[in-house]
Parts: sequence; C-alpha cells; structure tokens
Amino acid sequence: MSTYKSIAFANDNRDRFITLRRDLHQHPEPGWLEYRTAAIAADRLTELGYDLKVGKEVIHAESRMGLPSEEAMKQAMERAISEGANPKWVEAMGYGFTGMVATLHIDDQGPVVAFRADIDSNDVVEAQTDDHLPAKEGFSSKHDRAMHACGHDAHLTMALGLAEYIISHKEALHGTFKLILQPAEEGVRGAKAMRDAGVVDDVDYFFGMHIGINKAIANCLACMNFGFLATTKLDVEFKGYSSHAGASPELGKNALLAACTAALNLQAISRHSKGNSCINVGVLNAGTGRNVIPDTAYLQIETRGETGDVNEYIRKRAYEVLQGAAAMYDNEVIIREMGSAPACVNSEALAKEVQVLAKDMGLFRDVPLTNTGGGSEDCAYFLERVIEHGGQATYMILGSDIKAPHHNPRFDIDEADMINGIAVAGAIVETYLNKTK
Amino acid sequence: MSTYKSIAFANDNRDRFITLRRDLHQHPEPGWLEYRTAAIAADRLTELGYDLKVGKEVIHAESRMGLPSEEAMKQAMERAISEGANPKWVEAMGYGFTGMVATLHIDDQGPVVAFRADIDSNDVVEAQTDDHLPAKEGFSSKHDRAMHACGHDAHLTMALGLAEYIISHKEALHGTFKLILQPAEEGVRGAKAMRDAGVVDDVDYFFGMHIGINKAIANCLACMNFGFLATTKLDVEFKGYSSHAGASPELGKNALLAACTAALNLQAISRHSKGNSCINVGVLNAGTGRNVIPDTAYLQIETRGETGDVNEYIRKRAYEVLQGAAAMYDNEVIIREMGSAPACVNSEALAKEVQVLAKDMGLFRDVPLTNTGGGSEDCAYFLERVIEHGGQATYMILGSDIKAPHHNPRFDIDEADMINGIAVAGAIVETYLNKTK
Amino acid sequence: MSTYKSIAFANDNRDRFITLRRDLHQHPEPGWLEYRTAAIAADRLTELGYDLKVGKEVIHAESRMGLPSEEAMKQAMERAISEGANPKWVEAMGYGFTGMVATLHIDDQGPVVAFRADIDSNDVVEAQTDDHLPAKEGFSSKHDRAMHACGHDAHLTMALGLAEYIISHKEALHGTFKLILQPAEEGVRGAKAMRDAGVVDDVDYFFGMHIGINKAIANCLACMNFGFLATTKLDVEFKGYSSHAGASPELGKNALLAACTAALNLQAISRHSKGNSCINVGVLNAGTGRNVIPDTAYLQIETRGETGDVNEYIRKRAYEVLQGAAAMYDNEVIIREMGSAPACVNSEALAKEVQVLAKDMGLFRDVPLTNTGGGSEDCAYFLERVIEHGGQATYMILGSDIKAPHHNPRFDIDEADMINGIAVAGAIVETYLNKTK
Amino acid sequence: MSTYKSIAFANDNRDRFITLRRDLHQHPEPGWLEYRTAAIAADRLTELGYDLKVGKEVIHAESRMGLPSEEAMKQAMERAISEGANPKWVEAMGYGFTGMVATLHIDDQGPVVAFRADIDSNDVVEAQTDDHLPAKEGFSSKHDRAMHACGHDAHLTMALGLAEYIISHKEALHGTFKLILQPAEEGVRGAKAMRDAGVVDDVDYFFGMHIGINKAIANCLACMNFGFLATTKLDVEFKGYSSHAGASPELGKNALLAACTAALNLQAISRHSKGNSCINVGVLNAGTGRNVIPDTAYLQIETRGETGDVNEYIRKRAYEVLQGAAAMYDNEVIIREMGSAPACVNSEALAKEVQVLAKDMGLFRDVPLTNTGGGSEDCAYFLERVIEHGGQATYMILGSDIKAPHHNPRFDIDEADMINGIAVAGAIVETYLNKTK
Repeated sequence: MSTYKSIAFANDNRDRFITLRRDLHQHPEPGWLEYRTAAIAADRLTELGYDLKVGKEVIHAESRMGLPSEEAMKQAMERAISEGANPKWVEAMGYGFTGMVATLHIDDQGPVVAFRADIDSNDVVEAQTDDHLPAKEGFSSKHDRAMHACGHDAHLTMALGLAEYIISHKEALHGTFKLILQPAEEGVRGAKAMRDAGVVDDVDYFFGMHIGINKAIANCLACMNFGFLATTKLDVEFKGYSSHAGASPELGKNALLAACTAALNLQAISRHSKGNSCINVGVLNAGTGRNVIPDTAYLQIETRGETGDVNEYIRKRAYEVLQGAAAMYDNEVIIREMGSAPACVNSEALAKEVQVLAKDMGLFRDVPLTNTGGGSEDCAYFLERVIEHGGQATYMILGSDIKAPHHNPRFDIDEADMINGIAVAGAIVETYLNKTK
Repeated sequence: MSTYKSIAFANDNRDRFITLRRDLHQHPEPGWLEYRTAAIAADRLTELGYDLKVGKEVIHAESRMGLPSEEAMKQAMERAISEGANPKWVEAMGYGFTGMVATLHIDDQGPVVAFRADIDSNDVVEAQTDDHLPAKEGFSSKHDRAMHACGHDAHLTMALGLAEYIISHKEALHGTFKLILQPAEEGVRGAKAMRDAGVVDDVDYFFGMHIGINKAIANCLACMNFGFLATTKLDVEFKGYSSHAGASPELGKNALLAACTAALNLQAISRHSKGNSCINVGVLNAGTGRNVIPDTAYLQIETRGETGDVNEYIRKRAYEVLQGAAAMYDNEVIIREMGSAPACVNSEALAKEVQVLAKDMGLFRDVPLTNTGGGSEDCAYFLERVIEHGGQATYMILGSDIKAPHHNPRFDIDEADMINGIAVAGAIVETYLNKTK
Repeated sequence: MSTYKSIAFANDNRDRFITLRRDLHQHPEPGWLEYRTAAIAADRLTELGYDLKVGKEVIHAESRMGLPSEEAMKQAMERAISEGANPKWVEAMGYGFTGMVATLHIDDQGPVVAFRADIDSNDVVEAQTDDHLPAKEGFSSKHDRAMHACGHDAHLTMALGLAEYIISHKEALHGTFKLILQPAEEGVRGAKAMRDAGVVDDVDYFFGMHIGINKAIANCLACMNFGFLATTKLDVEFKGYSSHAGASPELGKNALLAACTAALNLQAISRHSKGNSCINVGVLNAGTGRNVIPDTAYLQIETRGETGDVNEYIRKRAYEVLQGAAAMYDNEVIIREMGSAPACVNSEALAKEVQVLAKDMGLFRDVPLTNTGGGSEDCAYFLERVIEHGGQATYMILGSDIKAPHHNPRFDIDEADMINGIAVAGAIVETYLNKTK
Repeated sequence: MSTYKSIAFANDNRDRFITLRRDLHQHPEPGWLEYRTAAIAADRLTELGYDLKVGKEVIHAESRMGLPSEEAMKQAMERAISEGANPKWVEAMGYGFTGMVATLHIDDQGPVVAFRADIDSNDVVEAQTDDHLPAKEGFSSKHDRAMHACGHDAHLTMALGLAEYIISHKEALHGTFKLILQPAEEGVRGAKAMRDAGVVDDVDYFFGMHIGINKAIANCLACMNFGFLATTKLDVEFKGYSSHAGASPELGKNALLAACTAALNLQAISRHSKGNSCINVGVLNAGTGRNVIPDTAYLQIETRGETGDVNEYIRKRAYEVLQGAAAMYDNEVIIREMGSAPACVNSEALAKEVQVLAKDMGLFRDVPLTNTGGGSEDCAYFLERVIEHGGQATYMILGSDIKAPHHNPRFDIDEADMINGIAVAGAIVETYLNKTK
C-alpha cells in the first residue's frame, strides 16, 4: 500500500481539498452558468502550469442544448464576479461556453490519457435542518434554488486534486494528460458540444467517475457502469391560432387538442423488442382562457432506450407523432432538443485493469467490476467517441455513504470517499501515463 | 278546374301508370345498376318521339361517385336482360352510366324547361306482411336486398307520364323540354356527374319533385323545400404495415391506432358559427388478428353542413385530420369521395308562381310555399347550376300518405298522389313552355 | 318630449353622473371583490333614503360560484378602505358577499318593480394610448390588471341615477321599487346566488339593461335581447399519483393522460339536433417535471347551448367524459361549477310596451323590438324566475358608439348614451310604478 | 448408447409412428374440436391398457376459455365420426371437453411422473406447393382452413409412442405414469381448465416438450425454456345506442368512439420497470352504417408480461381503461377472457438432470441447458402448479430443422427429430419411474 504516492498526497492535503469542496458547495451554479466554478478551476489550473483552453475553443456552439436565456447568463456572470470570479475567465467563457480543457503535454513517448469531471449544480432548494451536514457546518448553498445535490462539487475537487498530483509528478511520466471540465451534465446538455469540438478525438485512455450512485455502497469502487439509458429530452411548442370559442370556433387552430392528441399517441408508441423503451410527457401547458380556442401548447418530453437504437426508434416515432398532430390541427410545431445522451459503453479490458489496480491499492472494502445504474449520463458521448477511435474508456462509480438520494435536498457525500477518489484517480492516470504508446 | 287538360290526362291513364309503377316496384335496381329501369324508360321515350342521349353522353365519367364493382354491374346487366331489358340500351349504357336525357325541341321561341327524376332503389329488404300493400297485392320486390323504399318508382312513372303528356300537346307549346333521368341519388352519387356533363347548362326553368317527404302531409304540394344539408360521403383506407405484436412490435405501422386517432379528432372538429355542422364516423373496421399489429383500417364517414361553406369547412378539416393521423403512424391514407350534395337553394319567385298555379288547379288540400326537409338530395347540384347560369329552379314536395318513413321496409306511397303528381307536373311544364323567352 | 321629467333630470345632473362614472372607472374591482364600488353605492342609497340589505341577506352563500381566495378578498377589502370605502359596509359585506338590494316601499297600491345592475370589472389591462379617452382624460384604471371593459361602471352610474330619480318623485308613485346591485357577472358567477336568496321572488316587472352590445348601434334602444346562450363554466382537477418515469412508471397514475383523453372526448361530444351546442377546453395545465409521471392536471372548460336543455345535455355528457377519463387512469376528479347562466327568455308583451314608451320619448334614433346578442348573461336567472312566478321581465340593450369590442383594452362607451340610459330607465320604472296591481 | 432401450424402440417402430403422424396431419382439428384426434388417442390408450379419464372428469367446465359455438362443435363431432372416430369417445367428450388423462398405476413405490402433449391445430391454410413435403407426399390437410402448423401432430405421436414404450416396460418400473392430452393450446385456452380439474395436483415430476422452437436448432434438446411470456387474451364488446347521425345525434351512445378511446389508451398503458410489457389491440370492428351513430364495437386484445406480475399489471390497467371508456360514452362493456397463460417457471435441478441424461444418450448434436423462446405456452399452468405443490417440472425444446416458422403455411418438422423425441421422452420418464419416492 505504501507504494502508492497518490494516497499520501490525497491524505496530506485533505483539509485543503475539503475546504475547496465546501466553497464550491456554497456557490452552486446550474448548467451553462458555472462562471464562478469554472473561473476558480481556470485560475488553479493555470497556476499549476496547465495549458488551458476555455469556452468556444472546446465547446461546439451549435451542439449545445438546453441553454438558459442570455439574461440569466448575464446575471450569473455578474454574480460570479461579485463572488470573486476572475473577470478574465468570465469574459473568456462568454455566453454559454462554461467548459474547459486543461492539457499537460509531457512528451510524445506516452499515450493521451483523459479524465472528465462535470461541474454544474441542481435546481434544488437545500435542506436547512441540523441533520444535514452542510447546514449544520455552515457551508450550505448561498444561491437561491440551486444546490450541489449530485456531488459535482466533489467531482471538481477531485479533478483539481488529480491535476495537482499529476503535474507534481510529471517527471516520472510520459505522454499527455487532458483534464476535461464539462458544464451542464444535468439534463444531459453539455457533453455533446465538447465531443463535437473534438476534445476526445485523440484520447487513448478515458476515465469518468461519479460519486455515490445508488447501488454502489460506501467505500467501494465499481470499475465500470452498465445501464445508463440512451435518452433524448425534447421541448415542444405547438402554435395554432386563437379565436373566440363561442363566436367563431371555426377560425381557431386548436393547439391544446393538437398537444393532447400528441401526448396520447406518444405514450402509445409501440414497445421495442430489443429492450426497454420509455417515453414520458412530463409537462403540458396549453391555453390562455376558458372561452378562447387555445393557440399555444408546450410539452416537456423525454425518451429513453436500453440501446441507442431503441432510443432513436422512440425519438423518430415521437417526431412523427408530433408532426402528425400538428398537421391535424394546422398548427406549427417546434421541437427543441434540450439534452441527449447515448447508452453507456465501456471497455471491459480497461475496467479489469482498473480493478486489479484498485484492489492492489487497498483503499476500498470492495472493488466490483461492474455496477448497474439507472438514469442517463452524457459522459457516454465521450466514451462512445473514444472507443470508436480505437481508444479505451470506462466510467467508474465511487461508492459513498450518501445521506439521501441524488437530487434530494438532503443529499450529502462522505468527504472521506472524495479523498480516496483523488488517490485512486491519481494512481490510475499515473499508471496509464507510464504505458508506452 | 276543368281547364287543366293534364288532370284529365292523368286520370284517364291512371291504370296504365299504376301498372308501370308496380312493375318498376317489383324490379328495384340500386344506384349505377338501373339497367332494366333505364331500358324501359329509353324504349318508352324513343317510342314517344324524344331525342335520347344515354350513358357517357350525359354522365361525366370522372365525376361519378360510389360506383359498385364491375362484377356487380355485369350481374345487373345480365339480370336486366333476363328480365326483359332491351340489350341495345344495356350495351349503350355500359359500365356505370345508367342515366339519360330525353329532349323535345319544339322551336326556338320558348325557353328550355327541365324536369328531373331519380330512378334507383334502396338496399332494403321489403316487408312481406299483409299490412304492406305491395306484398298483399303481389307486386313487392323480386330482387334480393333491394326495394323501392324512397318512391323513385313513382318518380319515374310520373316522369314518363309527364313526357307523354308534353309530347302529345307539343303543338301548343314552344321552346325545349328536357327530361333528366338520374341514376344513383341514394348516397348522393349521381347528380354531380350529370351536372358536370352539362345537361342543365342551358336550362331556363328547372323542376325537381319528391314524393312524400315527412313533413308534407297527404294531398298537398309544397312549392319549394328548405333544409336539405350540404353533405360529403367519404370512404377512407389507412394502409400501414403489419408485424408480430410480441416479437417485433417496432416494425409495425399501426393502421388501427391511426384510424382511432382520426375518428376521435374528426368528431372533435370545432362547431361552425354559421350553422349546423355534423360529422359521423359510422363504420370502422381494422386489423386481422389479436397478435398482429394491424396494417389496414377502413372508415365510412359523412359530413353535413347547413350551408355549402359549413360543409366544406368540415370536409377540409376532415382531410387534415385524416392526413395528420396517417402521418403520425407513417401510414398511407386513401380518401375516396363516395357521394356529395350541396345545400339546396330555390328560386322563390318561381316557387311562388308554382304556388299560384297549383292552388288554381284545385287538386290539393293544401299548397304551402315551403317545406322544411332534413337529409340531403343531390338534385341540389342541378338547382345550384341553373340558378348560377341565370335560370330559375325549384324542388317541390308532393305530399303523400306514406305508410312508414322513407327507407323503411314498410314504406309505401298512395298511388293517388302519384296520379296528381303527373297532373301538376304536366301543368307546370306546359305553363313554362308557353312563356316567351 | 317635454313631458318626460326623467329626461330633464338626467340632463340637469349630467356632469355629476359623468364624474361618478369616471371615479368608478378608475377603481375597477373584479367579481366578488367590489368592496369600494359597493360601499359607494351603499352610502349613496342610504343617503337617498332607501332601505338597504347587503351581503348575506341577499346572497345565498352556497350558490356563489367562482370565488377568489380569502387572501385576495382581504387585500381587496384593505385596498377599498384605503381608497375611501366606508369600513362599515366593507365589514357588512364580509368575505364574498359584495351585492345589495335597495328597496323603496311606497305603498301597497302598486306592483313590485325591479331594476338590476352589475358592478364588477374585467381582468384586462387598460390601454394607455391617447386614442383611448380614459387615458387621455386621466381617468383610466388605477388598479393592476383590472379594467371596466364591459361598461359596468356606466351600469352602476345609471342605477344610482335611477334610484335618485325615483325616490325624488315617489309622491306620484305606488307600489315598491327594488334596485338590485349584483356582483360577479363576469364569468356568470353572481346572479344565481341572489336569485336563490329570493330577491326577485316578489317582483312583478323586472328590467335589466346592457350598454353597447355589439349589434345594437349608437343611440338606439333594443327592447329585448335574444340569443344569450345557456352556459356552464367548469374548473376540473385530476389527481393521480406521481412516480419516476424511468424507474417505476407502473406506479404512476397519469393525470396528464387522463386530462388529454378528457379534452379530446369533451370536444367530441355529439352535436344536438335542437340547436347550437358548444364546448371549449380553454386551458389545460398538467405535470411538474420532464421525468415525472404527472400527478395533477387542471382544466378550464365552458359549455354553451342554444337552450337550457341543450346546455344541460352537454354539461351532463361532460361529467360522464370527465369521470370516465378519471376512471381510466384511477384518478380522482374534482369538478367545480365556476359559473352558469340559463338561456335568456323575455316577456314579449312587456318589451312591446317598452318600445312604445321609448319611441314616444324621442331620445333614440331607433327603437327595435329585439336585438340578437351572443355570449351569455346571468341576469337570465332573474328573468327566468320572475316569469316562472307570473311576472314579466325584459333585458334591454342600450346602443352606444363603443370604441372597441367589449373586454378589449380600448373599450369605451359614449357617456351621452349613459345619460340617455338614466332618462329611459327612469321613465320606464316610473311608468310601471304607476300601474295598479 | 446401446443401453437405452427407448432408442431401439423408437427406431424399430419408426414407420408406424410416421404413418400415425401423417394421418393426424391430414386431419387437423382446432382447439375444443379435436374429436377425431382425441378418439384415436383414446382407442389406442385403452388398447394399451391405460386407465382413461376423458372430458368433464379432467376438464373444469368454468375454466375453459375461448370456446367455439355449439354449432361448430356439432359439425366437428359429425365430421370426426364420418372420418372414423369412435362415436363412444365423441359422445363421452361432449361439447367442449376434448381432453383426457391416461394413467398407469404400477405400484406405490415410485413417484407420480407426468408428460403432457397438446393436440389442436391452427387456423392456417396449408401450402400446396411441391416444396412443402406434406403436399408433395400427399398427406396435407384435408380440412378447410385448418393445418397442423405448430407440430402438435408430432406432439401427440410422441405421446402415444411414449405411452406404448412405458407400459411395455412397466415390469421394471415403479410409481405412476400420467399422460395428459390437452386440447386448445393455441390461444392458450385449455391448460387452465385441466389444471383446475386437479390433474397435476399429485405429480412429482412433470415434463412438457415442444418441437422446433425457433432458436433451438436441429438435432438438439434444450432442457428447459425461458422467456415464455405471461399472457391474457381478451375479447371486448361495447354496447351503446344507435341513432340517426343527422337527425338526432344527441340520442346516440357512440360505441365506436368508446372503442377508439379505449384502443389509444390501452396502447398508452405505462411500461413496467420489472420487464417487458406488451399490449396489442389486434382487431376493432364498429358500426353499421355511414349515417348511424355506432352502437356496437368489438375488440380483440392481448396482453403479455415478462412475469405474471407484469402481465397482471397490464391486464388490470386494461380493465380500468375499458371500463373508463365505456363510462365516458354511457356504454355497457363486456370483457371476455379468451385465453391465458402464466410466465413459464422451470425446476433448474430437474433440467440439469435431464441434460446429463440426454447427453449420455448420444442422440443429439447439442444439449444446452436452456433455450430462450418467445411467445406464450399454457403448459406453464401445469409447471407452476406442480412446483407450488413441491414437485419438479421442466419444459423442454426438441430442436428440429423446421422449413418455415411456426404457424406458417409451409411449416414442417423433420420426422427424424420426432423419432428422437420418443426415444428421449421414453428414457426420461423411465428414469424417474425408477426413482424411489
């Protein structure tokens, strides 16, 4: 055990990392608005000596999904600066480009190894009761209706710890290390735009990691995760024509009925024989008044599939249903893709190597090869691309004794697991930066 | 009274007309299959000296609606010949052209006066009980599932009586008389094709007449009829793609669901502020087996409107709904127009003149100006065209003590009213053939 | 003309009435919140010497429909007092009882004559442009999202002018005069509760009047109005059960789908052969998040019928549809009747007498017997009851050169017509208080 | 190999078994109509010395599903007798009881071992082309619209071969052998009624076997089958009230719209998180004429679930949807359960023993432990009951080089596999009749 320097590094700097995580926890920023969070990371990574690319250089504008309004971005920028963000970075990121890639090119002898962390928060109001540690210890969210309820504060802390560890040991390493900090994972909105910017096109070994997914118990590391479903999030708007319902109903083009017909027929899309296929119309708002033929309707929809093909089948059928319903009522229909992720594929060979290493480190009570998680994760875009290009990739689950489910107002991680996370990530990346190409 | 020669003519030939009507009643022929009926009329009209145009000369092929199969036509031809129809006429009419126009051109001094009669029967099984006169007297239908249950046997009898009366008094008359014998009024399938062949384009005075419409009581004549609704009859076929419902549901294109969605949304078409608007999906048949995604669906639909505009609104909306539903399920949709009629417009001035004349004849207990009937009548196509071209037209109701509602197996007219009908029709046409142009 | 004292009265006090109307216009109060409006009327009517009953005495609590929240009432009370309302009346009206009846009992020799005015405002934001007189002259609405856009400010002004005129001429009159000031006509919410309190049970002659209904042109009086449709306003809530759409969809009870199915099938309720039948689902809001099975849905619905029977047919069918849709999804459904009005019946004999009188007054360019209005008006509840009890009743339309349709932000009346309205109402009531019983 | 006497037995009697199978193939009889088939079996089994129970003794009347009409049964009885069925058995079976249980009680020293075969045919028109062996060799179906397209002719042949083998070797055996011949497996209609009659309540070892299920290749034996889905077959009738669509639409109770609403909402039943859940509305027929409000609608529905719970969820939801749709349109709804089967559970220990034995026999190229089949099989009712009562049960798949999928007009088995089937069944049953209890 004592041979793993990353363990000592993580433990020696424990207090500093916890302080950092708690500061991030107090200042949660939702997707595409992570100005302060990203600015802190940028300052730190340049200070450490990384070559930094931020904003449009690493985010393909057209592939971004589910952007907030410019007004919301502007307010977030101002708040970030008022809370200490370096204005240089805020300006560099601009409107809706709150991600970055930090690169350490050591030499050409080794492979390109990448580690990705997501940095956004959730639209959750944090619990303020004494049984919730952040509240008790005074580091709960200072931001209205925002909370780090999915552990991304720990994700960024581990990423920065990893960056520090790697650069401080670079003499013994080869190749290139890329740290990818991705905005807007919540709603699966951000990864596609970074993938489309090509940030993982040259990667040989890719690692992602999530803290505390439900089936992975405390103090364990699952070396790859199955069961993230492919998903698409759609916002739909029907535009019809209003008319007085009593005086001239025939002049109306009823958006409410178009939306209702769509909702029923979306839900009636046939099952797929190749696996779990889901669709949900979660929200429908239509109409302006009791005696007016409704001229607008809004729907929020998500599709999920056990494989990308199954999800694509549902997505394609959903478009047919929506367009058919609009045609029925002579409505215009606008479909906006607000987020998406493919199903998650891992390189089993890589995961097995990680398993051997992690067991050897002796940090964890249990090191299973696989975890089966539900939900969706847009990191899958990176894994898919790396594997397509001949690299290897895995998405690990770092078990933690979480106090409540993810996205719950009482969600909290055990910071001890975060410290272990820095140690194991350091050892993994170090290992692959030692491989000859 | 004694001054009306047509009254004496009708009464003197009473037995002959009744014999003719009973022969027609025994040999009912549904729409587009009236080979024997039409052949009898054609023989009689040429014998009388009329110039006769039959079949394609007076029926525009592309405008015919709701045609039976060629097989059904062939069988009807064979039966007609076996029952005494002149093969010459059967051949002349050919497949689906069972109408004719008989013209008597007297001189150029007078107007063109037209009278229209419809000649087809209903798909009704005639009552065989003793309280039904045709059964009791032995002249009920000899044809399977066919019956003159709407009085068209009387209509043709009156038309031929009228033709005989007019030509026998032609010396005293001027202008041109046209007798229009129209097939396939049931289902409003035949008039449009004759109108489109131009048969009323030159008409100055046009008369249609129905025996026994419900609100017109016995022994009366209503000089024009309001309330026939504009209507369209649609047959619809959805064509999808079948697949095993358990093994590969995703490969199916569900025609049953397309049809169900269409049915609901057709019924949900908005009311129209300008008057009564109706739609009915009367029949829906879909699917082949319990465990197969249905690949076909058939619907029978009718729309009605208080005005042509209202009906056109419903018809247009129905097409949108059907096409939208097909698009939803990636189905092909085939919409066939099986019948149609406009709302009925009359020339009030002409009706008032008819009223004066009919009162003067002293034949009727009551001669109201208007009757308000329901349902639809494709004679309205002729009235509309005549009035568009500057002529005058009216559709009269000849009251009769009918024994049961139209289309009922016990329907029967009072033949005395039919004799009166010949008298009044003779007097009316005679009157207008005396008008100088 | 000079014989009508009410004409001189109206003209002599013209400025005072206009001032009153403009004050009311500046302080519009929506239905059930007319505290200031009613308090001003109550002060004035007691001052004049009327016997006043307010609140629960004249409003049957259980029959009130479409009440705002108690919080909204409390705020309205406070605002009314801060704007000068007499706290005594505000207190007397309490929560949701903002109507009153002012009675002048002269003697037992004459009949009971009633006049009704409605006093509430609309949820409309008043236009502030110079082409809108209230804006230009500085008397537009001071209240947020409220405007007198249906002329009820003029209605109350006329009512108070009438009250003043009658009491000042009572020496020459007999019988009893009742002035009914009704809250919450908008949404047809208030009349039923006053009818159920019995306020018109003893009335022999009943008059209602509306200013400026669309087909009645300026400077005219239509002596009765046809075509107000029977109507019912329904608020519907579906309560299902939420569940995570991906993790456990089978546990959900989908309120959104129940509501969509209801909406489609409500719209598909069959037409009625006895006249115009309408239904509109004007608003549908359902669901809380994209990935949650929706557990709630809210609908706003209205039904209309050419007769009470037709409306009752639609209302009954709507309940069946809503309950069936709820049963389909194991939802609870709560249906609240938010407003209703019967079709409007008038006493033609009374209207004809009014016509003679109004023509004789010489005030109007035109005095048609009838106007055909659309929409609905809950004054119909009063007319229906008076006629049931053997009295006579009519609802008149006072034409005015309105600047935009009712409920439009630019709606404005011509105040000259309001002055004429006081004159004609005075003359009418005076006339019937002279009739011997 | 030479030690398995059943192999020699099967091969020695090969021609006789093939002749029997081909005779059965020529005389296919659909479910509940297997009079000739069953009579032949009954004759043979009594001849062999089995104790036979037929008809009501082994079939619980109330649990039978999807019965044909009595008229159809009568015709089938007459045909069976005319084709050589022993009238004694036809009479014994009566209306709708075409199953039997043949019992051989040897002694009380051994267990009760049961083998089940199904005997009904499919509603398929057999191919008559030369590439279809039964046509080429002259033994294709003599019955109109009936064909053994699922191999049940081979199933019965194997069962009778097994019966012959066991009774001819009974001296060496112990315990009791029960041969269960089940009618109406197609549509999963017959097993439940035999289970409810208690025919497997005393069984210690139960075996079922199907020839040629798709994923089991030729010349192999899969020792248990997974993936038969639980299923329910429903026939549904909506009864409304008809009315003329134009004249009095409000009097109708529209069964077509009730059925369409049901169809859409059935298809929209939520997925289940515990596995594959399917529903199909395969057939919908509604309405009688274009201008009549439809008063009847018929649907054929099936539900499937990966587990019994999942299927039960869908079935229960389907009832809610159907009853809700009926309530919406004030229709009566009649739901008939036409067939059902649970998901298939096997005793893995027993299957493993069978695997060892079958491998040892050397008859098969491959002997996998499991096959994963789709579809449904009501034999699952027997397995479930046996296991509930503490016995063991397995459902085996006998691979065969089938020429076309099951239920296809060209379906044919390889008779060599049937001979092997007799051999392996004989050895298995023999083995378990040697076990001490």
